[in-house]
Amino acid sequence: MDMERDVLQVEDLKYDEKGLIPAVIQQFDSLEVLMVAYMNEESLRKTIETGRTWFWSRSRKQYWMKGETSGHVQDVKEILYDCDADTLLVLVDQTGAACHTQSRTCFYRRLYPTVDAGLVTEGEGNAPLS
Amino acid sequence: MDMERDVLQVEDLKYDEKGLIPAVIQQFDSLEVLMVAYMNEESLRKTIETGRTWFWSRSRKQYWMKGETSGHVQDVKEILYDCDADTLLVLVDQTGAACHTQSRTCFYRRLYPTVDAGLVTEGEGNAPLS
Repeated sequence: MDMERDVLQVEDLKYDEKGLIPAVIQQFDSLEVLMVAYMNEESLRKTIETGRTWFWSRSRKQYWMKGETSGHVQDVKEILYDCDADTLLVLVDQTGAACHTQSRTCFYRRLYPTVDAGLVTEGEGNAPLS
Repeated sequence: MDMERDVLQVEDLKYDEKGLIPAVIQQFDSLEVLMVAYMNEESLRKTIETGRTWFWSRSRKQYWMKGETSGHVQDVKEILYDCDADTLLVLVDQTGAACHTQSRTCFYRRLYPTVDAGLVTEGEGNAPLS
């Protein structure tokens, strides 16, 4: 499918019953996945207009620009959407840390496989994968 | 933070009010983001036990193993979770296409920037980013 011809607009995307769409944020050059946050139609428009990521905080019920207080802004390079048009992939150039813990990425902890004894035993999905 | 020591278990993750947690699926070597789908506690357990990705279909209300009919399975290499423990990042080795459209990734369409006239005009976020 030609990427340039089949273009939806912001209002054509599928937002959930709360008007939200999840946005996977990926560093454009290293391709590291930095975080996942939620946009609504307005924050997506603000993102496109400003070239910086804006999200909707589900807990605080307000718009927030990533890096507004920390300076750890995300400059937007590209926004893709998936086959269902209900998820965004936003390629950014992250200044500093994406995570509020000061980790570069929010995904800094591993669930599987784990080296902790007892959590994963041999034969339970821990076999070498082809 | 030491990745091995701060380990949550499947039941400790934060599932939403429907019992779901979004899972970003990323090809482990190319780091391409392939798709986003939803797991619940049981499908996450099945994923860990089988080494293949299992999801919960929100529309069909049933479990499904990725590639069950198409053969386009995802062998799980690693599962990470984010700082809020409410999102998963699953590193997989994708056989064939991740998308039902036969595209390698579900994110094959671009919202921004677009070369289509009129959708993005100069000065509206289309400037070179530093």
